[in-house]
Amino acid sequence: MTLAPPPSSRVQLTDDGKLRHFLSVEHLSRSLLEDMLDTAASFVDVGGRAIKKVPLLRGKTVVNLFFESSTRTRSTFELAAKRLSADVLNLDISKSATSKGETLLDTLRNLEAMAADMFVVRHQDSGAPFFIANEVTPGVAVINAGDGRHAHPTQAMLDMYTIRHYKGGFDGLRVAIVGDVLHSRVARSQIHALNILGAEEVRLIGPRTLLPVAAESLGVTVFNDMAQGLRDVDVVIMLRLQKERMDSAFLPSEAEFFRLYGLNNEKLRHAKPDAIVMHPGPINRGVEIASEVADGPRSVILNQVTFGIAVRMAVMSMAISGQESSQNPEQGEDHGR
Amino acid sequence: MTLAPPPSSRVQLTDDGKLRHFLSVEHLSRSLLEDMLDTAASFVDVGGRAIKKVPLLRGKTVVNLFFESSTRTRSTFELAAKRLSADVLNLDISKSATSKGETLLDTLRNLEAMAADMFVVRHQDSGAPFFIANEVTPGVAVINAGDGRHAHPTQAMLDMYTIRHYKGGFDGLRVAIVGDVLHSRVARSQIHALNILGAEEVRLIGPRTLLPVAAESLGVTVFNDMAQGLRDVDVVIMLRLQKERMDSAFLPSEAEFFRLYGLNNEKLRHAKPDAIVMHPGPINRGVEIASEVADGPRSVILNQVTFGIAVRMAVMSMAISGQESSQNPEQGEDHGR
Amino acid sequence: MTLAPPPSSRVQLTDDGKLRHFLSVEHLSRSLLEDMLDTAASFVDVGGRAIKKVPLLRGKTVVNLFFESSTRTRSTFELAAKRLSADVLNLDISKSATSKGETLLDTLRNLEAMAADMFVVRHQDSGAPFFIANEVTPGVAVINAGDGRHAHPTQAMLDMYTIRHYKGGFDGLRVAIVGDVLHSRVARSQIHALNILGAEEVRLIGPRTLLPVAAESLGVTVFNDMAQGLRDVDVVIMLRLQKERMDSAFLPSEAEFFRLYGLNNEKLRHAKPDAIVMHPGPINRGVEIASEVADGPRSVILNQVTFGIAVRMAVMSMAISGQESSQNPEQGEDHGR
Repeated sequence: MTLAPPPSSRVQLTDDGKLRHFLSVEHLSRSLLEDMLDTAASFVDVGGRAIKKVPLLRGKTVVNLFFESSTRTRSTFELAAKRLSADVLNLDISKSATSKGETLLDTLRNLEAMAADMFVVRHQDSGAPFFIANEVTPGVAVINAGDGRHAHPTQAMLDMYTIRHYKGGFDGLRVAIVGDVLHSRVARSQIHALNILGAEEVRLIGPRTLLPVAAESLGVTVFNDMAQGLRDVDVVIMLRLQKERMDSAFLPSEAEFFRLYGLNNEKLRHAKPDAIVMHPGPINRGVEIASEVADGPRSVILNQVTFGIAVRMAVMSMAISGQESSQNPEQGEDHGR
Repeated sequence: MTLAPPPSSRVQLTDDGKLRHFLSVEHLSRSLLEDMLDTAASFVDVGGRAIKKVPLLRGKTVVNLFFESSTRTRSTFELAAKRLSADVLNLDISKSATSKGETLLDTLRNLEAMAADMFVVRHQDSGAPFFIANEVTPGVAVINAGDGRHAHPTQAMLDMYTIRHYKGGFDGLRVAIVGDVLHSRVARSQIHALNILGAEEVRLIGPRTLLPVAAESLGVTVFNDMAQGLRDVDVVIMLRLQKERMDSAFLPSEAEFFRLYGLNNEKLRHAKPDAIVMHPGPINRGVEIASEVADGPRSVILNQVTFGIAVRMAVMSMAISGQESSQNPEQGEDHGR
Repeated sequence: MTLAPPPSSRVQLTDDGKLRHFLSVEHLSRSLLEDMLDTAASFVDVGGRAIKKVPLLRGKTVVNLFFESSTRTRSTFELAAKRLSADVLNLDISKSATSKGETLLDTLRNLEAMAADMFVVRHQDSGAPFFIANEVTPGVAVINAGDGRHAHPTQAMLDMYTIRHYKGGFDGLRVAIVGDVLHSRVARSQIHALNILGAEEVRLIGPRTLLPVAAESLGVTVFNDMAQGLRDVDVVIMLRLQKERMDSAFLPSEAEFFRLYGLNNEKLRHAKPDAIVMHPGPINRGVEIASEVADGPRSVILNQVTFGIAVRMAVMSMAISGQESSQNPEQGEDHGR
C-alpha cells in the first residue's frame, strides 16, 4: 500500500503559519526551518545540564506509534519527550491492536479518545503520516519519524542543525550526499531542506542503479564518480547501505561498492580541507564508510545524535504550541524558547 | 486451570465498606458503584486539561501484571496510572519470570517485596485476580483487568458511566446486550452492574449457541431475534465476536452472523429513536457492527474510551485510598475527589 | 566471546577513591563496601513511605542495556531508578540496533551522545561491563547487572546488607554457599564480599562437578557433604540450579540433587539454631530448596528483594555522585545520604 502524500504541505501549518504537524520539510519556508534550528539551539544545553529536564510538555501524552520497529529512532523521541516532561506511551503496532483486525483509523480514534496529544509515527508506507495528520482530531500533533521511501524530516533537520553549527550557515555551501539515494527517505528530506535553506549546490553521488531517475529535477547535480563529486565540497553526507540491497541486482558486491563509493581518507582528500563528514547511523563500517573516517577528526556523526535530541525537543514543543494556539487563538504565542 | 471465584466478594472491601480491590461488580452495593461513577466524573475533565496530571498516586508503584497480552487495555491502565502520577512497571508475564519455572505466588511475593502498591491483573483463567487478592500482603491493591470468561469490571463500569452520562441514570432503562454473550467476560460484568444500578430490563440477544444456558437466572430476558430484542431499548451494547469462534461449531459463517445479528441502521430502527450504541472495542466492522452504525450519530463508542481512562483513575485512587485507610484506620478518608 | 576482566578494579574508583562504576566487589575496600551498606540503609525506609520517591537522580537518564534478558533484574533496577526520580530507557539489545550490524561500541557511543548518565549492563560474556566502563565517556557510570559467570555485584551487596541486618555484622560469622557454585556469578561476588567484609569462614558445599577447581584459592573451605558443611553456620546461601545443567553430565538427576544438596528442615538442623536462609531467586522449589524452608521462619529470601531495591538505589546514587565529583572536583561531596 502506498498512500500518496498530498500535493501541498498545508496540513502542517496553522492558519497563521505556525507548525502544528511535522511531516516533511518540503514546502516549508526558510524562516520556519530557521526558527526550528533556533529553537533547537535553546535545547542543546539542556542535555549538558545536571538536571536534563524542562517542564514544557508536562502533563502531555506522547504516543510513539511505530508500525515499523526502530529502537534507535524510538529511543531518541522517547528521551526528547521525557526531557520535555511528557508522559510517553510506546506502541509497537506491528505486534498489537491491528493484529486483532482493527483498522488504522480505529486505532487512531481510540488513542485520541484517550486524550493523546501527539503521535510520533513511523510507517513502512510512504505518506502514512500525512494520511494520519489529515484524519486526527484538531489539537493532536503528528510527527513523521520516517515513512517508506518518502521522508524522515527530523533526521534532515538534525543534519541541518549540524551543518549550521559547524559551517555557520548555508550560503555558498557545497554538500554531497553519497550512496543509496534511491531507497533513502533521509536523502529526500535532506535535499529539500538544503535547497530551502539556501545551500549553493547539492550533489548526489552513487552508482546509476542507486540514484533516482531524473534526479536533476530535484535541484541537484549528479555524479557517478567519487573523485569528481567530492571535489571542493564542504559537507559529505554518507547514507546507510541497506544490506538487503546487496542480494538484489542493484549492487555487484559489498567490496566493490566500498572500492567505488565507500568513504576513506584517500577519497575524502578531494573534499575541502575543513569538510565535515556526516551519517544518519547506524553505520556499516567497511561498507559505506571506513573506520578511519567514521572515527576521524572530520566526522561529526555522534554530534548529529546529540543535536538530534534537541531538534526533536524543538519539533515537539513547536507542534504542541502550534496546536494549542490554533485551539485557543489568543494563547500559545511562545514555544519554549 | 480454573480458579473458582469465592462465593462472596468480601475480599474487595475494607471492614468499613470501602473498596480496596476491584475484582468484580457482583455483590457490590449500588452506593459503592455510584460512588465510583461520581469519582470518575471528577477525573473526566483532567483529560481535557492542558496538564493532564494529578498528584494522587505520586510515589506509588503500579505493576501491570499481564498474563494475557492486551496492548489496548494495558495502555489505558498505564495512562490512567501516569495521569495519577504513579510509577508504572509493565510486566508481560507470559514472556518472563514464570518461564523460569517460578510459581505465580513467588512472582507476587517478589513484586510485593519490591514495594509494589497495586497489581493490575489480566489473566486467561477465571478467578485468578481473586486468588491473587486473597494472597497479597495487606496494603497492596488488586484490580481485575479481565479474567478468563469471568469478569472485566472496569470495562463494565466505564459502560455504566457512559450510560449514566447519556441517559441521566438507570431508572426505567431497557438495555440490550447483543452477540457472543457466552464467551464474554464483559457481558457478565455488565449484567451485574446494570442490575445493581437498577436498570429496568436487561436483554440478551444472540443465537442459542452463543448465549449461556439458563441465562434467565442472571436476571435477564433472552431473545434470539434482533427485531424483537431491540424493540424500544434505550441502550444497545454490541459485543466483539472473537474470530476464533468462527472456526468452531458455534457459528455458521461471518456473513450469516452479520445478516442475523450484525447491527445496521435497519435493525437499529427497532430501538428507541434516542438509543445509544456501545461496544467495548476493538470493533469488527461488518461482522457484529456496520460502519454506518459504528461511525453514526448514535454511536458513543469512542466516548466510552475517554470515560474509560477516568473510570480507571477512579478505581485506582479509590483502591489505594481504601488500602491506606485499612492500614492506618485514622487516615485516608478521602480518595481524591 | 570472553572479555577478560582487567587485573585491577581501578576503573571503578575516582582518583580520591569514590565509586564511579560498580563492576565487581573484588579489589574494593572494606570501608567502601560498608559505606555502600550504610547508604542503602538510608534508602530502605523510602520503600515504606507513602511517597516512595527521592529527587536525587531527577533529570538523569538511566539506560538499562540488557544484552541478556532478565525481567526480574531489569525491574529492580527500573524501580530503583524511578524511585530516585531518574528517566529510564529500557533497551533489550538482543532484539534491536546490534541486529542491524552495529558494533557494541557504536551502540554505546550513540547512547552517550544522547546524554545518558548511566548504563546498567547485563551481558552473557564475562568482563563485558569492564570493557564498557573502560570505553565510556567520562561522566557516564556503568553498573554491572550480571556478566557471564564472572560477577553480579549488586546481588552480592544486597546479600551482604541482608546478613548485616540480621546478624549485626560479619565478625565471627560462618557462611555456607550451597549448590552450583561453578556456574554462579552470584557466588563469585559473594565470596569476595564476605572476605572483604571480614566473615570468619566462607564454605562452599556441592558436588565436585559443580564446584570450581582449586576453589580453596578463593579463600574458602570446601565440602561435598551437607551435614558437615552446614555444621554451626550462621548463614546458608542456596544457589539457583540452572535447569539446563540437568541435561548435562554435571548432575545425575533433579531428585538425586535434592536428596543430597536440597535444603530441607532436616539438613538445616545442622546449622546454628538462629541461622538465616538466603537465595538470590527465582527459587526452584523441590530442587535446591524445600518449600518448608523457603517459606519457613529462617528464610529471609523476600527481605533480600526489598533490600535489593535500596542497595541498587545506593549504588546508583553513589556512582552518579562519584562521576560528578570527578567531573567537577569541587562539587559532589555527598551521595544522597
